[in-house]
Amino acid sequence: MSLNVGIIGATGYGGVELHRILTNHPKVTSCTLYTSSSEKKKYAHVYPHLTDICTLDLEMVETEQVQASHDVVFLATPSGVSASLSPELVTDDLKIIDLSGDLRLKNPGMYEQWYHKASAPADLLEEAVYGLSEMNRELIKTANVIANPGCYPTATLLGLAPIVKSQLVKPKSIIIDAKSGVSGAGRKPAVGTSFTEMHENLKIYKVHEHQHIPEIEQVIHEWDDQLDAISFHTHLIPMTRGIMATIYVELKKNLKQNELMDLYIQFYESEPFVRIRADGSFPGTKDVYGSNYCDIGLKLDERTGRLTIVSVIDNLMKGAAGQAVQNFNILFDFEETMGLKQMVPVYP
Amino acid sequence: MSLNVGIIGATGYGGVELHRILTNHPKVTSCTLYTSSSEKKKYAHVYPHLTDICTLDLEMVETEQVQASHDVVFLATPSGVSASLSPELVTDDLKIIDLSGDLRLKNPGMYEQWYHKASAPADLLEEAVYGLSEMNRELIKTANVIANPGCYPTATLLGLAPIVKSQLVKPKSIIIDAKSGVSGAGRKPAVGTSFTEMHENLKIYKVHEHQHIPEIEQVIHEWDDQLDAISFHTHLIPMTRGIMATIYVELKKNLKQNELMDLYIQFYESEPFVRIRADGSFPGTKDVYGSNYCDIGLKLDERTGRLTIVSVIDNLMKGAAGQAVQNFNILFDFEETMGLKQMVPVYP
Amino acid sequence: MSLNVGIIGATGYGGVELHRILTNHPKVTSCTLYTSSSEKKKYAHVYPHLTDICTLDLEMVETEQVQASHDVVFLATPSGVSASLSPELVTDDLKIIDLSGDLRLKNPGMYEQWYHKASAPADLLEEAVYGLSEMNRELIKTANVIANPGCYPTATLLGLAPIVKSQLVKPKSIIIDAKSGVSGAGRKPAVGTSFTEMHENLKIYKVHEHQHIPEIEQVIHEWDDQLDAISFHTHLIPMTRGIMATIYVELKKNLKQNELMDLYIQFYESEPFVRIRADGSFPGTKDVYGSNYCDIGLKLDERTGRLTIVSVIDNLMKGAAGQAVQNFNILFDFEETMGLKQMVPVYP
Amino acid sequence: MSLNVGIIGATGYGGVELHRILTNHPKVTSCTLYTSSSEKKKYAHVYPHLTDICTLDLEMVETEQVQASHDVVFLATPSGVSASLSPELVTDDLKIIDLSGDLRLKNPGMYEQWYHKASAPADLLEEAVYGLSEMNRELIKTANVIANPGCYPTATLLGLAPIVKSQLVKPKSIIIDAKSGVSGAGRKPAVGTSFTEMHENLKIYKVHEHQHIPEIEQVIHEWDDQLDAISFHTHLIPMTRGIMATIYVELKKNLKQNELMDLYIQFYESEPFVRIRADGSFPGTKDVYGSNYCDIGLKLDERTGRLTIVSVIDNLMKGAAGQAVQNFNILFDFEETMGLKQMVPVYP
Repeated sequence: MSLNVGIIGATGYGGVELHRILTNHPKVTSCTLYTSSSEKKKYAHVYPHLTDICTLDLEMVETEQVQASHDVVFLATPSGVSASLSPELVTDDLKIIDLSGDLRLKNPGMYEQWYHKASAPADLLEEAVYGLSEMNRELIKTANVIANPGCYPTATLLGLAPIVKSQLVKPKSIIIDAKSGVSGAGRKPAVGTSFTEMHENLKIYKVHEHQHIPEIEQVIHEWDDQLDAISFHTHLIPMTRGIMATIYVELKKNLKQNELMDLYIQFYESEPFVRIRADGSFPGTKDVYGSNYCDIGLKLDERTGRLTIVSVIDNLMKGAAGQAVQNFNILFDFEETMGLKQMVPVYP
Repeated sequence: MSLNVGIIGATGYGGVELHRILTNHPKVTSCTLYTSSSEKKKYAHVYPHLTDICTLDLEMVETEQVQASHDVVFLATPSGVSASLSPELVTDDLKIIDLSGDLRLKNPGMYEQWYHKASAPADLLEEAVYGLSEMNRELIKTANVIANPGCYPTATLLGLAPIVKSQLVKPKSIIIDAKSGVSGAGRKPAVGTSFTEMHENLKIYKVHEHQHIPEIEQVIHEWDDQLDAISFHTHLIPMTRGIMATIYVELKKNLKQNELMDLYIQFYESEPFVRIRADGSFPGTKDVYGSNYCDIGLKLDERTGRLTIVSVIDNLMKGAAGQAVQNFNILFDFEETMGLKQMVPVYP
Repeated sequence: MSLNVGIIGATGYGGVELHRILTNHPKVTSCTLYTSSSEKKKYAHVYPHLTDICTLDLEMVETEQVQASHDVVFLATPSGVSASLSPELVTDDLKIIDLSGDLRLKNPGMYEQWYHKASAPADLLEEAVYGLSEMNRELIKTANVIANPGCYPTATLLGLAPIVKSQLVKPKSIIIDAKSGVSGAGRKPAVGTSFTEMHENLKIYKVHEHQHIPEIEQVIHEWDDQLDAISFHTHLIPMTRGIMATIYVELKKNLKQNELMDLYIQFYESEPFVRIRADGSFPGTKDVYGSNYCDIGLKLDERTGRLTIVSVIDNLMKGAAGQAVQNFNILFDFEETMGLKQMVPVYP
Repeated sequence: MSLNVGIIGATGYGGVELHRILTNHPKVTSCTLYTSSSEKKKYAHVYPHLTDICTLDLEMVETEQVQASHDVVFLATPSGVSASLSPELVTDDLKIIDLSGDLRLKNPGMYEQWYHKASAPADLLEEAVYGLSEMNRELIKTANVIANPGCYPTATLLGLAPIVKSQLVKPKSIIIDAKSGVSGAGRKPAVGTSFTEMHENLKIYKVHEHQHIPEIEQVIHEWDDQLDAISFHTHLIPMTRGIMATIYVELKKNLKQNELMDLYIQFYESEPFVRIRADGSFPGTKDVYGSNYCDIGLKLDERTGRLTIVSVIDNLMKGAAGQAVQNFNILFDFEETMGLKQMVPVYP
């Protein structure tokens, strides 16, 4: 099987990272690039690093043409676009993988409260499968619409899954101190993310108001219904790519460090993209740069009884385009690592 | 009054920052620069940015000569040096301001446990005044030996003081997620702090083992004896200067955001170097770059009841040399801001 | 004498750097901050690092009010503003120091050709004194209007002056490969200068078209009328501050390295802000960070006969605000280093 | 055909980049990793980003074992190692691709003058083929020993080839102002390349003394025997990867910009890894990040008659490991882009 793919929102960073992966994906026959701008332009004109690699023009989205041309479309669009576009596009013959946050929250009211925008229809939210690949593999296989997880939730949830799914976490104890590279803020220029203002700088933003909070809470509540509100903060780090979630939790049971290590190692034993660091060692974001890995380290503090979990990903890969392609592979029953495994982290 | 000053450990980053400040301090007549290397060398040879500004040679420390020549010496030396040097140097006529961690912990056993080195004599530890300027002003005035606070403790303790001193903090609830620029690791080259390995990277280090943990605990326990163990983590940020402490606490009383803002504003009302950010606004590290300010923002999360406090400093200024000079001013009864207030943050 | 000063264009990077210097200048009584935006706003709202330091509002420019209120105004405005504003403002009682390029070129046609904007009136261009402090000190003393040099021309011309003024340079042999930090591009956000696109990147821009080319040529032709067209290129370096000009020239006479060193040392012997590096040593941009220094290194290549001169400045200081204040000091007969000399380079 | 490959010097940056490429090379059966350290260690212990990807131990070099085990060895060793090791290793059955500078200069005396080390034997220097893939393809096909070009020479020579090979360049007119990311300095830590000293800094180094000068001169002299000494300078840019060579030349003939564009386009028409930018556009280093491309832009200055050529590469890819694998492909008659073409530049 060989597929015709579309990327809607190709000029953003999620879009161009999807293009980087799909260019070498053995099952992708064609990859059409859509943008909202009506100006006729070559993709390589927007992104000159693609000179000779991509000679395509950017296209405008026309619903029927998109439906007729593709087996699957990736939406790498700003908040609010997919909420109105996906209901139009979805058919039995066109799979949708939405990288935006529009289809992740099951409750339309929650979306409107945290995103300050009109929600997608409730039935589409119901239908959409949350694409945290490692956790929802079976659902993804038969999905029509996949809500690809947010970058912060991916790092956080993979870090928490082994202990939350084991019902080990004390309610109200979860604190996530998250840090992201600046590419997470998207391509639209702003004073606050200009080089001059962000270099040699470190900022906290959206304190108690980040839209990924309800997304994380929805999932952990699903895994353990005693868990609800978390504390979650996001910082902007003077680097381009990478997310680190430093997670603090209290456990209900008195486990030892080696038992926790065993739990994590076994939990992710057969996962190709999750790597548990050796006891005493912790990952840096550069260790996953340009790759689809999620690296996790953990250490129990015997003085306070708190467990610290450190989870890192490349926000544009496992936190966006990489996981989207992983889901695409699951959906079409390709080898799950296809097109991704050869993306060895770029180091240094 | 005009003073003869010595800097021991002048070739490290704390030392060169002390030199930057003292060069323009109106009460400093002379500033002698000491190093442990026996090679005869000009200071401007080690730091060419001081060409024409400083024409002095580096000197070796000879106890009696140091005692005879100076009114005060700053020790900006690696861990372990002050523990053995300070007892030799201290006299009634020579004040010591130690920027290292050697004299901060009152309990010699704690020092040895966390620093893995031989402690200073217990009586010297007893005598040393902890130089958190804003909190210990009266003690500093009459001190012979000042233990200048660590960079992380300074940011953390100034962030916590208003609520801890008001006995508002729930025991065992304090979590500090701290982030530092790479200059905090000192000047000695290592693979892990080389440009190539640290740029576009974000690391956590010394998980549950940082030597600033007992320093912070000692002080908050002194302020509220119900408080003891904290969770405290340190991250290396790809920038040169700056510390941010993101502090999570639970409160014993149900306070509102505006009550907390009032508490902080009043607490620091007359402090020249602590700035409380307007409600809803948070500082970035660049806002204090090159200056002696500590900027603080805070926000109560009504969903979880947790309070988040964000405290930033320049690790080499308020976190080291700047606070040392502030203490020097207090000690000699100069205007507390002398030589420091004109150091407006360098922005951008 | 104590002066009332205005900064027009206070919200740009040149403006905020002027403010940083003038805040501590002993002869400045008041410093009013002007902007083109009509929104009433505190300066510290635009630049929160000035919280508590500056409590002033931003003001709109009203010609008569400006003329009545100030002894001198600094224009730190984008190209094109001063060309129309300066003629309105100038009076016998109001000195103008223009940091923009609008008054630097004597020939209105040249301005229009390189800046693509309407020129200032020819008589104003004639009257304006080119404020390269070290070279035009006498003219500056009696000027009404000072055209403060561009950042690249300052680094380049100070690097070239000793040999060009000695008529040593072979015509047509001058090549300047210049590199600048991103703050030189100003505060207005753009994709090309966003953190994400500029970090880990190095770009060349305005090839053969930079508006500082005619400025440099005008001055070197004045110094040696056999010299005219130069080759001059500008690169954007992933750092905030700093300019390096790497200058390649051929000499008319066979001089030795030590003779050239002597020439440079003697030429700048009494200059407080120009430092010649020891033979064999070259400055980096960080050596002048935040200061008004221009550091110069040079080396003759005996294989090719070419001389390489490396000249570095902080683009916002000696390349803009610092030199403007130096000119202000000369103009009002203050000590030339007043308010500037204590700005020791911030290192690291 | 499927090959057994060895990497000698696997712990350096050239070595780890070779590993990144060869891991996914379809014709490589096994890749053994050699280091000079005798300590038994896993490769992923030195480079934790390779956890799960590479489970091999590092091995010590034993000449006979290396000869017996491999079809080809890559030497990614510091200067001086290959000069003594290659003569021992070379046999008819073992191809050598040397990434160091030891085998590039034909004249042993030149090597000793510029590298200050003992040269390889003259006959080995004679035998070694200079592996500038685009230019020496035919020789590479039958080589036993390949001297892989230096990073600066690769960018420079590909930028100069079309005009030098056309005998268009005026003798003595070539000036190359080169800039490199810090990874070019290797992995060994040093104060000058530590994060804190190199961040927000820009340095020139080895002025008139860089060992790549004779390498470039040797090749351009071979292409046009009227050309000899060049001016060549190297700068350290605060980024990890990337080289830009800004090249200034005077031409013997009066060509127009469009004629020069045509010359370059035609010259590289069939080259898979050289991309000529559209007229008026210039590449940044990030455009080739992580890839094997060399991107070139050019523009004639009609005012001075000088041509500017800008050539960028990733110093670890086309400037080292990428070109080495390209040569490996040529040598073994694989498709030249094998294992390389799918490495799309990582952007942003």
